[in-house]
Amino acid sequence: MSRTYPRVAEIEIDPSQLEAYKAALKEQIEAAVRLEPGVLALYSVAEKENPARVFVFEIYADVDAYKAHLETAHFKKYKATTQDMVKSLKLRDTVPILLRAKP
Amino acid sequence: MSRTYPRVAEIEIDPSQLEAYKAALKEQIEAAVRLEPGVLALYSVAEKENPARVFVFEIYADVDAYKAHLETAHFKKYKATTQDMVKSLKLRDTVPILLRAKP
Repeated sequence: MSRTYPRVAEIEIDPSQLEAYKAALKEQIEAAVRLEPGVLALYSVAEKENPARVFVFEIYADVDAYKAHLETAHFKKYKATTQDMVKSLKLRDTVPILLRAKP
Repeated sequence: MSRTYPRVAEIEIDPSQLEAYKAALKEQIEAAVRLEPGVLALYSVAEKENPARVFVFEIYADVDAYKAHLETAHFKKYKATTQDMVKSLKLRDTVPILLRAKP
């Protein structure tokens, strides 16, 4: 995965809506990785000390794959469903240093 | 990778030492993923707008694999080499929501 387009999202969720948010996020991730050839990986985690802080580490094949992802029905549904659950959102454009995983 | 132990590291590097830092980080990541059975993935990226801000998304098999990683020769070498290059370090303990990648 040396020529990929990674991104890091940091999302603060309304704690009272956390379970609903996580359900919507999981549905979106499952659809995106299954249906979109250019979505290579979506890893979502919650901070242990503050579970309402969510990180998503995203790996796309390239910038066009990311742009296509934003136009999919499953992503638009996720955005609409979660818009009132999200308190803040940092979307970080990043460049790979080294991405290594077990074969 | 449903039963894994993910972590997110956010590291601010001294910009004048960024290239040396990235070389040390790459060497450590390559060794860890190759040599340690419990290190499943280490993904390192730099923020595009501020390349001295580095994120590492880490996936271990379990907490013990992470603890063992901290005791390896390659990790200790990395820590010693980079200690004067790192301006700040946030190590976030996290719990998986959903980790999905292409098969």
